Amino acid sequence: MCQLLGMNCNTPTDILFSFEGFHRRGGLTDHHADGWGIAFFEGRGVRLFIDDKPSSDSPVAGLVRRYPIKSKNVIAHIRKATQGEIRLENCHPFVRELWGQYWIFAHNGDLKDFQPAQGQHYQPVGSTDSERAFCHILEQLRLRWNTPPDSAQLFDEMTRLAAQIRPHGTFNFMLSNGEWLIAHCATHLHTIVRQAPFNTAHLVDDDVSIDFSTVTTPRDRVAVIATQPLTDNENWSALAPGELVLFRDGAALYTSHPAS
Amino acid sequence: MCQLLGMNCNTPTDILFSFEGFHRRGGLTDHHADGWGIAFFEGRGVRLFIDDKPSSDSPVAGLVRRYPIKSKNVIAHIRKATQGEIRLENCHPFVRELWGQYWIFAHNGDLKDFQPAQGQHYQPVGSTDSERAFCHILEQLRLRWNTPPDSAQLFDEMTRLAAQIRPHGTFNFMLSNGEWLIAHCATHLHTIVRQAPFNTAHLVDDDVSIDFSTVTTPRDRVAVIATQPLTDNENWSALAPGELVLFRDGAALYTSHPAS
Repeated sequence: MCQLLGMNCNTPTDILFSFEGFHRRGGLTDHHADGWGIAFFEGRGVRLFIDDKPSSDSPVAGLVRRYPIKSKNVIAHIRKATQGEIRLENCHPFVRELWGQYWIFAHNGDLKDFQPAQGQHYQPVGSTDSERAFCHILEQLRLRWNTPPDSAQLFDEMTRLAAQIRPHGTFNFMLSNGEWLIAHCATHLHTIVRQAPFNTAHLVDDDVSIDFSTVTTPRDRVAVIATQPLTDNENWSALAPGELVLFRDGAALYTSHPAS
Repeated sequence: MCQLLGMNCNTPTDILFSFEGFHRRGGLTDHHADGWGIAFFEGRGVRLFIDDKPSSDSPVAGLVRRYPIKSKNVIAHIRKATQGEIRLENCHPFVRELWGQYWIFAHNGDLKDFQPAQGQHYQPVGSTDSERAFCHILEQLRLRWNTPPDSAQLFDEMTRLAAQIRPHGTFNFMLSNGEWLIAHCATHLHTIVRQAPFNTAHLVDDDVSIDFSTVTTPRDRVAVIATQPLTDNENWSALAPGELVLFRDGAALYTSHPAS
Protein backbone atom coordinates (compact mmCIF):
# COMPACT_ATOMS: atom_id res chain seq x y z
CA MET A 1 0.00 0.00 0.00
CA CYS A 2 1.04 3.54 -0.60
CA GLN A 3 1.43 6.18 2.06
CA LEU A 4 -0.11 9.63 2.06
CA LEU A 5 0.91 12.77 3.93
CA GLY A 6 -0.92 16.07 3.88
CA MET A 7 -0.57 19.38 5.67
CA ASN A 8 -3.00 22.31 5.85
CA CYS A 9 -2.11 25.41 7.86
CA ASN A 10 -3.27 28.92 8.62
CA THR A 11 0.23 30.29 8.02
CA PRO A 12 2.92 29.04 5.62
CA THR A 13 4.79 26.30 7.48
CA ASP A 14 7.60 23.96 6.48
CA ILE A 15 6.97 20.24 6.49
CA LEU A 16 10.58 19.18 7.16
CA PHE A 17 9.87 17.35 10.43
CA SER A 18 6.95 15.31 9.10
CA PHE A 19 8.70 14.63 5.79
CA GLU A 20 11.78 13.42 7.66
CA GLY A 21 9.84 10.48 9.06
CA PHE A 22 7.58 10.03 6.06
CA HIS A 23 10.28 9.76 3.38
CA ARG A 24 11.99 6.94 5.33
CA ARG A 25 8.94 4.78 4.70
CA GLY A 26 9.90 4.86 1.02
CA GLY A 27 12.23 1.86 1.04
CA LEU A 28 13.99 2.23 4.38
CA THR A 29 11.57 1.51 7.26
CA ASP A 30 8.77 0.21 5.08
CA HIS A 31 8.10 -1.27 1.65
CA HIS A 32 6.95 1.61 -0.52
CA ALA A 33 9.79 1.78 -2.98
CA ASP A 34 8.13 2.47 -6.33
CA GLY A 35 8.48 6.24 -6.46
CA TRP A 36 7.27 9.19 -4.47
CA GLY A 37 6.23 12.79 -4.84
CA ILE A 38 5.38 15.96 -2.96
CA ALA A 39 3.51 19.10 -4.03
CA PHE A 40 3.67 22.43 -2.20
CA PHE A 41 1.41 25.38 -2.84
CA GLU A 42 3.08 28.76 -2.64
CA GLY A 43 0.37 31.33 -3.20
CA ARG A 44 -1.37 30.24 -6.39
CA GLY A 45 1.74 28.44 -7.63
CA VAL A 46 2.74 24.82 -7.04
CA ARG A 47 6.13 23.23 -6.60
CA LEU A 48 5.89 19.59 -7.61
CA PHE A 49 8.72 17.14 -6.97
CA ILE A 50 8.18 13.60 -8.23
CA ASP A 51 10.59 10.73 -8.64
CA ASP A 52 10.32 7.14 -9.79
CA LYS A 53 13.20 6.22 -7.46
CA PRO A 54 12.59 5.23 -3.79
CA SER A 55 12.31 8.35 -1.62
CA SER A 56 14.90 6.99 0.83
CA ASP A 57 17.68 7.35 -1.77
CA SER A 58 16.29 9.98 -4.16
CA PRO A 59 18.44 13.10 -4.78
CA VAL A 60 15.22 15.09 -5.09
CA ALA A 61 14.06 13.86 -1.68
CA GLY A 62 17.46 14.94 -0.37
CA LEU A 63 16.76 18.47 -1.62
CA VAL A 64 13.26 18.52 -0.12
CA ARG A 65 14.63 17.30 3.25
CA ARG A 66 17.08 20.21 3.41
CA TYR A 67 14.98 22.97 1.86
CA PRO A 68 12.46 24.62 4.22
CA ILE A 69 9.73 25.38 1.68
CA LYS A 70 6.91 27.16 3.52
CA SER A 71 3.43 26.29 2.37
CA LYS A 72 -0.16 26.34 3.61
CA ASN A 73 -1.07 23.18 1.68
CA VAL A 74 1.18 20.19 0.99
CA ILE A 75 0.42 16.69 -0.28
CA ALA A 76 3.05 13.94 -0.38
CA HIS A 77 2.83 10.35 -1.53
CA ILE A 78 5.04 7.28 -1.44
CA ARG A 79 4.11 4.71 -4.02
CA LYS A 80 3.78 0.96 -3.93
CA ALA A 81 2.71 0.21 -7.47
CA THR A 82 -0.54 -1.74 -7.79
CA GLN A 83 -1.69 -0.46 -11.19
CA GLY A 84 0.52 1.27 -13.74
CA GLU A 85 4.23 0.67 -14.27
CA ILE A 86 6.96 2.34 -12.22
CA ARG A 87 7.33 5.38 -14.43
CA LEU A 88 7.51 9.10 -13.79
CA GLU A 89 4.07 9.79 -15.26
CA ASN A 90 2.54 7.37 -12.74
CA CYS A 91 4.01 9.10 -9.66
CA HIS A 92 1.66 11.07 -7.42
CA PRO A 93 0.72 13.83 -6.70
CA PHE A 94 -0.91 14.68 -10.01
CA VAL A 95 -1.56 18.30 -10.98
CA ARG A 96 -4.17 19.85 -13.24
CA GLU A 97 -5.66 23.32 -13.64
CA LEU A 98 -9.37 23.88 -12.94
CA TRP A 99 -11.08 27.32 -12.93
CA GLY A 100 -7.66 29.03 -13.12
CA GLN A 101 -6.39 27.21 -10.01
CA TYR A 102 -3.93 24.34 -9.75
CA TRP A 103 -5.39 21.25 -8.11
CA ILE A 104 -3.21 18.49 -6.67
CA PHE A 105 -4.26 14.92 -5.90
CA ALA A 106 -2.74 11.77 -4.44
CA HIS A 107 -4.34 8.38 -3.81
CA ASN A 108 -3.58 5.39 -1.66
CA GLY A 109 -5.37 2.23 -2.65
CA ASP A 110 -6.52 0.32 -5.66
CA LEU A 111 -9.63 0.88 -7.81
CA LYS A 112 -10.87 -2.07 -9.82
CA ASP A 113 -13.00 -1.79 -12.94
CA PHE A 114 -12.96 1.98 -12.76
CA GLN A 115 -13.05 3.10 -16.39
CA PRO A 116 -15.02 6.35 -16.62
CA ALA A 117 -15.83 7.74 -20.08
CA GLN A 118 -13.10 9.88 -21.64
CA GLY A 119 -13.37 13.45 -20.43
CA GLN A 120 -13.86 16.50 -22.61
CA HIS A 121 -11.54 18.53 -20.38
CA TYR A 122 -9.22 16.12 -18.56
CA GLN A 123 -7.44 12.96 -19.67
CA PRO A 124 -4.91 10.84 -17.81
CA VAL A 125 -1.32 10.93 -19.07
CA GLY A 126 -0.16 7.80 -17.23
CA SER A 127 -1.81 4.43 -16.68
CA THR A 128 -2.90 4.49 -13.03
CA ASP A 129 -6.41 4.08 -11.63
CA SER A 130 -5.50 7.07 -9.41
CA GLU A 131 -5.01 9.56 -12.24
CA ARG A 132 -8.20 8.26 -13.89
CA ALA A 133 -10.09 9.00 -10.66
CA PHE A 134 -8.54 12.47 -10.40
CA CYS A 135 -9.42 13.34 -13.99
CA HIS A 136 -12.97 12.01 -13.47
CA ILE A 137 -13.44 14.18 -10.38
CA LEU A 138 -12.18 17.31 -12.15
CA GLU A 139 -14.30 16.55 -15.21
CA GLN A 140 -17.45 16.25 -13.10
CA LEU A 141 -16.70 19.49 -11.22
CA ARG A 142 -15.94 21.32 -14.47
CA LEU A 143 -19.11 20.06 -16.14
CA ARG A 144 -21.20 21.16 -13.16
CA TRP A 145 -19.68 24.62 -12.63
CA ASN A 146 -18.03 27.09 -15.03
CA THR A 147 -16.67 29.09 -12.09
CA PRO A 148 -15.69 27.94 -8.58
CA PRO A 149 -18.63 27.14 -6.27
CA ASP A 150 -18.40 28.01 -2.59
CA SER A 151 -16.62 25.50 -0.39
CA ALA A 152 -19.84 24.06 1.10
CA GLN A 153 -21.23 23.28 -2.35
CA LEU A 154 -17.91 21.84 -3.39
CA PHE A 155 -17.73 19.67 -0.29
CA ASP A 156 -21.21 18.26 -0.98
CA GLU A 157 -20.26 17.42 -4.53
CA MET A 158 -16.98 15.83 -3.41
CA THR A 159 -18.93 13.73 -0.89
CA ARG A 160 -21.14 12.52 -3.74
CA LEU A 161 -18.18 11.79 -6.04
CA ALA A 162 -16.22 9.96 -3.32
CA ALA A 163 -19.28 7.79 -2.61
CA GLN A 164 -19.61 7.07 -6.33
CA ILE A 165 -15.99 5.94 -6.72
CA ARG A 166 -15.61 4.20 -3.30
CA PRO A 167 -17.31 0.93 -4.30
CA HIS A 168 -14.56 0.29 -6.88
CA GLY A 169 -11.95 -0.49 -4.25
CA THR A 170 -9.77 1.31 -1.75
CA PHE A 171 -9.95 5.07 -2.16
CA ASN A 172 -7.96 6.99 0.43
CA PHE A 173 -7.10 10.29 -1.21
CA MET A 174 -6.08 13.89 -0.64
CA LEU A 175 -6.98 16.82 -2.87
CA SER A 176 -6.10 20.50 -2.59
CA ASN A 177 -6.57 23.68 -4.60
CA GLY A 178 -4.24 25.70 -2.38
CA GLU A 179 -7.11 27.14 -0.30
CA TRP A 180 -8.34 23.96 1.36
CA LEU A 181 -7.28 20.33 1.57
CA ILE A 182 -9.83 17.52 1.33
CA ALA A 183 -8.99 14.09 2.78
CA HIS A 184 -11.06 10.98 2.19
CA CYS A 185 -10.55 7.86 4.28
CA ALA A 186 -11.35 4.44 2.89
CA THR A 187 -9.22 2.35 5.23
CA HIS A 188 -6.41 4.24 7.01
CA LEU A 189 -6.00 7.96 7.52
CA HIS A 190 -4.97 9.70 10.74
CA THR A 191 -4.97 13.36 11.61
CA ILE A 192 -3.67 15.72 14.24
CA VAL A 193 -4.17 19.46 14.67
CA ARG A 194 -1.24 21.22 16.30
CA GLN A 195 -1.94 24.59 17.94
CA ALA A 196 -0.91 26.53 21.05
CA PRO A 197 0.23 25.41 23.52
CA PHE A 198 2.76 23.64 21.28
CA ASN A 199 4.73 20.69 22.61
CA THR A 200 7.61 18.46 21.64
CA ALA A 201 6.88 15.74 19.08
CA HIS A 202 8.96 12.62 18.45
CA LEU A 203 9.01 10.67 15.16
CA VAL A 204 8.02 7.01 14.95
CA ASP A 205 10.47 6.29 12.12
CA ASP A 206 13.60 7.95 13.45
CA ASP A 207 14.95 9.21 16.76
CA VAL A 208 14.18 12.83 15.94
CA SER A 209 12.23 15.29 18.10
CA ILE A 210 11.12 18.86 17.62
CA ASP A 211 9.86 21.39 20.14
CA PHE A 212 7.18 23.13 18.08
CA SER A 213 6.92 25.95 20.65
CA THR A 214 10.32 27.20 19.45
CA VAL A 215 9.33 27.41 15.77
CA THR A 216 5.74 28.68 15.93
CA THR A 217 3.73 31.69 17.00
CA PRO A 218 0.72 31.33 19.33
CA ARG A 219 -1.68 31.90 16.43
CA ASP A 220 -0.31 29.10 14.22
CA ARG A 221 -2.51 26.12 13.54
CA VAL A 222 -1.38 23.13 11.48
CA ALA A 223 -3.38 20.06 10.51
CA VAL A 224 -1.31 17.03 9.51
CA ILE A 225 -2.99 14.05 7.87
CA ALA A 226 -1.14 10.78 7.27
CA THR A 227 -1.85 7.14 6.47
CA GLN A 228 -0.27 6.15 9.79
CA PRO A 229 0.65 8.46 12.69
CA LEU A 230 4.12 9.97 12.19
CA THR A 231 4.82 10.66 15.88
CA ASP A 232 4.61 8.35 18.89
CA ASN A 233 3.89 10.85 21.66
CA GLU A 234 0.88 12.75 20.29
CA ASN A 235 -2.80 11.86 20.05
CA TRP A 236 -3.62 11.21 16.40
CA SER A 237 -7.27 10.63 15.49
CA ALA A 238 -8.25 7.95 13.01
CA LEU A 239 -10.74 9.02 10.35
CA ALA A 240 -13.61 6.59 9.89
CA PRO A 241 -13.95 4.58 6.68
CA GLY A 242 -16.00 6.66 4.25
CA GLU A 243 -15.30 9.92 6.08
CA LEU A 244 -14.48 13.03 4.06
CA VAL A 245 -12.98 16.10 5.73
CA LEU A 246 -12.27 19.57 4.31
CA PHE A 247 -9.45 21.33 6.16
CA ARG A 248 -8.99 25.06 5.93
CA ASP A 249 -6.56 27.24 7.90
CA GLY A 250 -5.38 24.20 9.85
CA ALA A 251 -8.79 23.04 11.08
CA ALA A 252 -11.53 20.69 9.90
CA LEU A 253 -14.21 22.96 8.41
CA TYR A 254 -16.57 20.27 7.10
CA THR A 255 -16.82 16.59 7.96
CA SER A 256 -19.14 14.16 6.23
CA HIS A 257 -20.99 11.48 8.12
CA PRO A 258 -18.99 8.33 7.56
CA ALA A 259 -20.58 5.91 5.14
CA SER A 260 -22.61 3.31 6.98
CA MET B 1 14.62 40.21 -21.40
CA CYS B 2 14.27 36.62 -20.41
CA GLN B 3 16.44 33.80 -21.65
CA LEU B 4 15.27 30.54 -23.17
CA LEU B 5 17.04 27.22 -23.49
CA GLY B 6 15.67 24.12 -25.19
CA MET B 7 17.03 20.70 -26.05
CA ASN B 8 15.57 18.06 -28.36
CA CYS B 9 17.40 14.74 -28.87
CA ASN B 10 17.07 11.33 -30.45
CA THR B 11 18.27 9.65 -27.26
CA PRO B 12 17.81 10.74 -23.63
CA THR B 13 20.64 13.17 -22.91
CA ASP B 14 21.52 15.25 -19.87
CA ILE B 15 21.61 19.02 -20.19
CA LEU B 16 24.19 19.63 -17.45
CA PHE B 17 26.75 21.34 -19.70
CA SER B 18 24.32 23.76 -21.33
CA PHE B 19 22.52 24.44 -18.03
CA GLU B 20 25.86 25.20 -16.38
CA GLY B 21 26.33 28.24 -18.60
CA PHE B 22 22.65 29.11 -18.86
CA HIS B 23 21.87 29.24 -15.13
CA ARG B 24 24.70 31.72 -14.56
CA ARG B 25 22.78 34.22 -16.67
CA GLY B 26 20.18 34.28 -13.89
CA GLY B 27 21.74 36.99 -11.76
CA LEU B 28 25.47 36.23 -12.08
CA THR B 29 26.69 37.04 -15.60
CA ASP B 30 23.52 38.76 -16.74
CA HIS B 31 20.43 40.53 -15.39
CA HIS B 32 17.68 37.93 -15.36
CA ALA B 33 17.09 37.58 -11.66
CA ASP B 34 13.32 37.26 -11.31
CA GLY B 35 13.00 33.50 -11.15
CA TRP B 36 13.69 30.60 -13.43
CA GLY B 37 12.47 27.14 -14.31
CA ILE B 38 13.25 23.96 -16.22
CA ALA B 39 11.03 21.13 -17.40
CA PHE B 40 12.31 17.69 -18.45
CA PHE B 41 10.25 15.05 -20.18
CA GLU B 42 10.95 11.50 -19.08
CA GLY B 43 8.77 9.27 -21.20
CA ARG B 44 5.28 10.72 -20.89
CA GLY B 45 6.07 12.24 -17.51
CA VAL B 46 7.47 15.70 -16.77
CA ARG B 47 9.80 16.90 -14.07
CA LEU B 48 9.23 20.60 -13.52
CA PHE B 49 11.52 22.69 -11.34
CA ILE B 50 10.54 26.33 -10.90
CA ASP B 51 11.77 28.95 -8.49
CA ASP B 52 11.06 32.59 -7.89
CA LYS B 53 14.64 33.08 -6.68
CA PRO B 54 17.50 33.90 -9.09
CA SER B 55 18.86 30.72 -10.65
CA SER B 56 22.43 31.63 -9.71
CA ASP B 57 21.66 31.16 -5.99
CA SER B 58 18.64 28.82 -6.05
CA PRO B 59 18.93 25.54 -4.08
CA VAL B 60 16.75 23.92 -6.74
CA ALA B 61 19.15 25.07 -9.48
CA GLY B 62 21.93 23.53 -7.37
CA LEU B 63 20.14 20.19 -7.52
CA VAL B 64 19.55 20.44 -11.26
CA ARG B 65 23.24 21.30 -11.84
CA ARG B 66 24.35 18.14 -10.03
CA TYR B 67 21.65 15.71 -11.14
CA PRO B 68 22.13 14.21 -14.63
CA ILE B 69 18.47 13.89 -15.60
CA LYS B 70 18.33 12.31 -19.05
CA SER B 71 15.63 13.61 -21.31
CA LYS B 72 14.76 13.88 -25.00
CA ASN B 73 13.00 17.22 -24.55
CA VAL B 74 13.91 19.99 -22.14
CA ILE B 75 12.81 23.63 -21.89
CA ALA B 76 14.41 26.08 -19.46
CA HIS B 77 13.72 29.74 -18.81
CA ILE B 78 15.28 32.54 -16.82
CA ARG B 79 12.88 35.34 -16.07
CA LYS B 80 13.19 39.09 -16.18
CA ALA B 81 9.72 40.15 -15.13
CA THR B 82 7.94 42.44 -17.59
CA GLN B 83 4.33 41.50 -16.82
CA GLY B 84 3.18 39.70 -13.68
CA GLU B 85 4.75 39.95 -10.23
CA ILE B 86 7.73 37.87 -9.12
CA ARG B 87 5.73 34.94 -7.82
CA LEU B 88 5.99 31.18 -8.23
CA GLU B 89 2.86 30.95 -10.38
CA ASN B 90 4.43 33.38 -12.87
CA CYS B 91 7.61 31.33 -13.39
CA HIS B 92 8.05 29.49 -16.67
CA PRO B 93 7.88 26.80 -18.01
CA PHE B 94 4.13 26.33 -17.67
CA VAL B 95 2.59 22.85 -17.91
CA ARG B 96 -0.87 21.73 -18.99
CA GLU B 97 -2.36 18.46 -20.22
CA LEU B 98 -3.79 18.27 -23.74
CA TRP B 99 -5.05 15.04 -25.38
CA GLY B 100 -3.60 12.99 -22.52
CA GLN B 101 -0.10 14.48 -23.01
CA TYR B 102 1.71 17.04 -20.91
CA TRP B 103 2.66 20.16 -22.84
CA ILE B 104 5.31 22.59 -21.62
CA PHE B 105 5.79 26.20 -22.70
CA ALA B 106 8.17 29.08 -22.02
CA HIS B 107 8.20 32.56 -23.51
CA ASN B 108 10.75 35.32 -23.85
CA GLY B 109 9.31 38.71 -24.63
CA ASP B 110 6.35 40.89 -23.88
CA LEU B 111 2.85 40.80 -25.38
CA LYS B 112 0.81 43.97 -25.18
CA ASP B 113 -2.99 44.13 -25.30
CA PHE B 114 -3.21 40.38 -25.60
CA GLN B 115 -6.43 39.46 -23.79
CA PRO B 116 -8.01 36.47 -25.50
CA ALA B 117 -11.49 35.40 -24.41
CA GLN B 118 -11.59 33.08 -21.40
CA GLY B 119 -11.11 29.49 -22.50
CA GLN B 120 -13.51 26.63 -21.91
CA HIS B 121 -10.64 24.24 -21.28
CA TYR B 122 -7.63 26.29 -20.17
CA GLN B 123 -7.29 29.30 -17.90
CA PRO B 124 -4.15 31.02 -16.64
CA VAL B 125 -3.32 30.63 -12.94
CA GLY B 126 -0.83 33.49 -12.77
CA SER B 127 -0.86 36.98 -14.26
CA THR B 128 1.62 36.82 -17.14
CA ASP B 129 0.98 37.51 -20.80
CA SER B 130 3.00 34.32 -21.41
CA GLU B 131 0.63 31.97 -19.63
CA ARG B 132 -2.30 33.69 -21.34
CA ALA B 133 -0.67 32.98 -24.71
CA PHE B 134 0.01 29.34 -23.76
CA CYS B 135 -3.59 28.78 -22.63
CA HIS B 136 -4.88 30.45 -25.79
CA ILE B 137 -2.75 28.17 -28.00
CA LEU B 138 -3.91 25.03 -26.17
CA GLU B 139 -7.52 26.18 -26.26
CA GLN B 140 -7.38 26.70 -30.03
CA LEU B 141 -5.75 23.31 -30.60
CA ARG B 142 -8.27 21.58 -28.32
CA LEU B 143 -11.22 23.29 -30.01
CA ARG B 144 -9.96 22.24 -33.42
CA TRP B 145 -9.07 18.60 -32.64
CA ASN B 146 -10.46 16.11 -30.10
CA THR B 147 -7.49 13.81 -30.65
CA PRO B 148 -3.90 14.63 -31.64
CA PRO B 149 -3.42 15.61 -35.30
CA ASP B 150 -0.29 14.51 -37.13
CA SER B 151 2.77 16.67 -36.66
CA ALA B 152 2.49 18.35 -40.09
CA GLN B 153 -1.08 19.49 -39.37
CA LEU B 154 -0.05 20.61 -35.93
CA PHE B 155 2.89 22.58 -37.33
CA ASP B 156 0.62 24.38 -39.81
CA GLU B 157 -1.78 25.32 -37.04
CA MET B 158 1.07 26.49 -34.79
CA THR B 159 2.39 28.62 -37.68
CA ARG B 160 -1.05 30.23 -37.92
CA LEU B 161 -1.35 30.78 -34.16
CA ALA B 162 2.17 32.22 -33.86
CA ALA B 163 1.37 34.66 -36.68
CA GLN B 164 -1.86 35.63 -34.93
CA ILE B 165 -0.14 36.39 -31.60
CA ARG B 166 3.11 37.86 -33.01
CA PRO B 167 1.72 41.36 -33.72
CA HIS B 168 1.07 41.86 -29.98
CA GLY B 169 4.76 42.21 -29.15
CA THR B 170 7.82 40.03 -28.77
CA PHE B 171 6.98 36.37 -28.92
CA ASN B 172 10.01 34.09 -28.75
CA PHE B 173 8.73 30.82 -27.35
CA MET B 174 9.38 27.10 -27.00
CA LEU B 175 6.71 24.43 -26.73
CA SER B 176 7.02 20.66 -26.36
CA ASN B 177 4.73 17.67 -25.85
CA GLY B 178 7.63 15.29 -25.21
CA GLU B 179 7.71 14.04 -28.82
CA TRP B 180 8.78 17.23 -30.54
CA LEU B 181 9.92 20.71 -29.57
CA ILE B 182 8.67 23.79 -31.42
CA ALA B 183 10.69 27.01 -31.29
CA HIS B 184 9.42 30.36 -32.53
CA CYS B 185 11.80 33.26 -33.05
CA ALA B 186 10.56 36.84 -32.77
CA THR B 187 13.89 38.53 -32.12
CA HIS B 188 16.67 36.27 -30.81
CA LEU B 189 16.94 32.50 -30.95
CA HIS B 190 20.00 30.48 -31.91
CA THR B 191 20.35 26.79 -32.58
CA ILE B 192 22.98 24.15 -33.04
CA VAL B 193 22.70 20.46 -33.91
CA ARG B 194 25.43 18.31 -32.42
CA GLN B 195 26.08 14.95 -34.06
CA ALA B 196 29.03 12.74 -34.99
CA PRO B 197 31.85 13.57 -35.29
CA PHE B 198 31.48 15.21 -31.86
CA ASN B 199 33.95 17.83 -30.74
CA THR B 200 34.89 19.80 -27.67
CA ALA B 201 32.67 22.73 -26.76
CA HIS B 202 33.55 25.67 -24.49
CA LEU B 203 31.03 27.77 -22.57
CA VAL B 204 30.70 31.52 -23.07
CA ASP B 205 29.68 32.15 -19.44
CA ASP B 206 32.28 30.10 -17.61
CA ASP B 207 35.65 28.50 -18.33
CA VAL B 208 34.17 25.03 -18.76
CA SER B 209 34.69 22.67 -21.69
CA ILE B 210 33.33 19.28 -22.57
CA ASP B 211 34.51 16.75 -25.14
CA PHE B 212 31.18 15.43 -26.39
CA SER B 213 32.89 12.50 -28.15
CA THR B 214 33.55 10.97 -24.71
CA VAL B 215 29.90 11.08 -23.58
CA THR B 216 28.01 10.21 -26.77
CA THR B 217 27.55 7.35 -29.21
CA PRO B 218 27.96 7.88 -32.97
CA ARG B 219 24.18 7.75 -33.47
CA ASP B 220 23.33 10.52 -30.97
CA ARG B 221 21.90 13.74 -32.28
CA VAL B 222 21.10 16.73 -30.07
CA ALA B 223 19.54 20.05 -31.04
CA VAL B 224 20.12 22.89 -28.60
CA ILE B 225 18.15 26.12 -28.95
CA ALA B 226 18.99 29.20 -26.89
CA THR B 227 18.33 32.93 -26.85
CA GLN B 228 22.06 33.55 -27.23
CA PRO B 229 24.75 31.00 -28.14
CA LEU B 230 26.01 29.17 -25.06
CA THR B 231 29.41 28.19 -26.48
CA ASP B 232 32.09 30.32 -28.13
CA ASN B 233 33.77 27.74 -30.37
CA GLU B 234 30.83 26.26 -32.28
CA ASN B 235 28.76 27.55 -35.19
CA TRP B 236 25.33 28.50 -33.89
CA SER B 237 22.69 29.53 -36.45
CA ALA B 238 20.36 32.43 -35.80
CA LEU B 239 16.69 31.78 -36.51
CA ALA B 240 15.03 34.52 -38.56
CA PRO B 241 12.36 36.74 -37.01
CA GLY B 242 9.00 35.04 -37.55
CA GLU B 243 10.57 31.62 -38.12
CA LEU B 244 8.98 28.56 -36.54
CA VAL B 245 10.86 25.26 -36.35
CA LEU B 246 9.68 21.83 -35.19
CA PHE B 247 12.53 19.68 -33.90
CA ARG B 248 12.18 15.92 -33.61
CA ASP B 249 14.90 13.40 -32.76
CA GLY B 250 17.48 16.17 -32.62
CA ALA B 251 16.83 17.61 -36.09
CA ALA B 252 14.65 20.32 -37.62
CA LEU B 253 11.73 18.42 -39.22
CA TYR B 254 9.66 21.42 -40.34
CA THR B 255 10.65 25.05 -40.80
CA SER B 256 8.22 27.82 -41.68
CA HIS B 257 9.09 30.54 -44.10
CA PRO B 258 10.04 33.49 -41.93
CA ALA B 259 7.44 36.22 -41.80
CA SER B 260 8.21 38.90 -44.32
